[in-house]
Amino acid sequence: MPTFTGVNFSAATAVQPVADGRYAATVHDGWDIGGNANGGYLMAIAVRAMTETVGRPPLTVTGHYLRPAPAGPCDVEVATIRSGRRLATASATLSMGGKATLTLLATFGEQMPGGPSRQMESPVELPTFDESVAEPDGSQDPKPELMNRIDVRMHPDDDGFRGGRPSGRTEMRGWFALANDEPIDAIALMLAADAFPPPVFNSGLPVGWVPTVELTVHVRGVPAPGPLRCAFRSRFIHDGLLDEEGEMWDSTGVLVAQSRQLALVPRSAQ
Amino acid sequence: MPTFTGVNFSAATAVQPVADGRYAATVHDGWDIGGNANGGYLMAIAVRAMTETVGRPPLTVTGHYLRPAPAGPCDVEVATIRSGRRLATASATLSMGGKATLTLLATFGEQMPGGPSRQMESPVELPTFDESVAEPDGSQDPKPELMNRIDVRMHPDDDGFRGGRPSGRTEMRGWFALANDEPIDAIALMLAADAFPPPVFNSGLPVGWVPTVELTVHVRGVPAPGPLRCAFRSRFIHDGLLDEEGEMWDSTGVLVAQSRQLALVPRSAQ
Repeated sequence: MPTFTGVNFSAATAVQPVADGRYAATVHDGWDIGGNANGGYLMAIAVRAMTETVGRPPLTVTGHYLRPAPAGPCDVEVATIRSGRRLATASATLSMGGKATLTLLATFGEQMPGGPSRQMESPVELPTFDESVAEPDGSQDPKPELMNRIDVRMHPDDDGFRGGRPSGRTEMRGWFALANDEPIDAIALMLAADAFPPPVFNSGLPVGWVPTVELTVHVRGVPAPGPLRCAFRSRFIHDGLLDEEGEMWDSTGVLVAQSRQLALVPRSAQ
Repeated sequence: MPTFTGVNFSAATAVQPVADGRYAATVHDGWDIGGNANGGYLMAIAVRAMTETVGRPPLTVTGHYLRPAPAGPCDVEVATIRSGRRLATASATLSMGGKATLTLLATFGEQMPGGPSRQMESPVELPTFDESVAEPDGSQDPKPELMNRIDVRMHPDDDGFRGGRPSGRTEMRGWFALANDEPIDAIALMLAADAFPPPVFNSGLPVGWVPTVELTVHVRGVPAPGPLRCAFRSRFIHDGLLDEEGEMWDSTGVLVAQSRQLALVPRSAQ
């Protein structure tokens, strides 16, 4: 489990109210890939501000990514659209330097245990956490600082892309944890949903970069303690766009989140 | 193919500009289920207004459903959040009687033919359009007027729920067309994404009503002429919520849309 002395997830996504529905926050250094904040991390900052405004946890969050997010100050402006008995819906925009960087629409509320239940798929099967593959320390590229803050352990069958041996299946499976055993709450599920290498990296196609256009996360449960079992896949890659969808299960086998995103496959990748 | 003398889809989703980014429209009678407008139809009205504002076709649309929508006048207020070289992002709220009924966030732009391509799944296999099952005329319940406006032809294996013989698989497969051979454009894909009976009706669980919280549609192509092949499924039903996701293919075998929604399973269904 990585340890580090920087701010943990909860502190790195903290928001300070500055006016009604307005929050100041910081896109922290070290939560980026190549200088651009991880999309799930950025979403988590905004969702924390939204959660403070509406006073309920997130159920379904959609974010549209407008600009890269370097480290630095940001602000989040939240507008409540409807606050009902069971659900509340709000929009928000996270801005940096006065420019809209991420814009969101989300509905908040609690799961309601009980009622009809049917799970058509089982949690993804994985080797144990310790038998799965951490980001290698000795790879040619410097290990991204983000990998000291989160602990992504890949299924060995899906990790070959790092050594130039993509599996040929557009899938990434593995474990997700926060460093220092920090608990994973509903907001950290946003980070989990965007923390794995893009499944297209296992396709063998010449794709090096897949900027997210839109990411939707459905929160389906409150995670029990422990790392999450995760599986992400791309099913349709064409015309400059790809889908990526995932499931996240907690240590008790409960599906706690589903994600789907639409991402660009830049033309330069041809 | 049903024929009717009412307004067609294009006219039933028409919007009239009344001010900068504001449109007047009508939720037409006959596009409802039990007096509440179909969610995909309602989304299509709002997306038409958004498309007029940003001047580009939709790529990814998320709608959050706030209130039932009876037939009657509505207005749509659109705000452009970012208009870039390739993509534009906008939010909108459709209101009825001054109350927010559907709120949306969407990104607009064109697919970019060419580039890396990989399709991990084939179009759903179906009997021919004529061999598939139209909504029965002689069922006990009156045929919804909506079924004169669209032509949904179910896979015979998935249609038994109507006669009290659910398949046990939470899946609905079939064909989608508009009445009178009206072409299916990017906006009509919103309707296709929400036109089939909920897959949970094939579960055998006592669920009679699944109001949509959130629906996201990714437009992956411009449909060639002809009916769409469609497949929808629910994979995780628990704690008062279910997912529903779908794919829509055109007559040439191209995936033209993907959808996912989060819906409520009302407690009364226990």
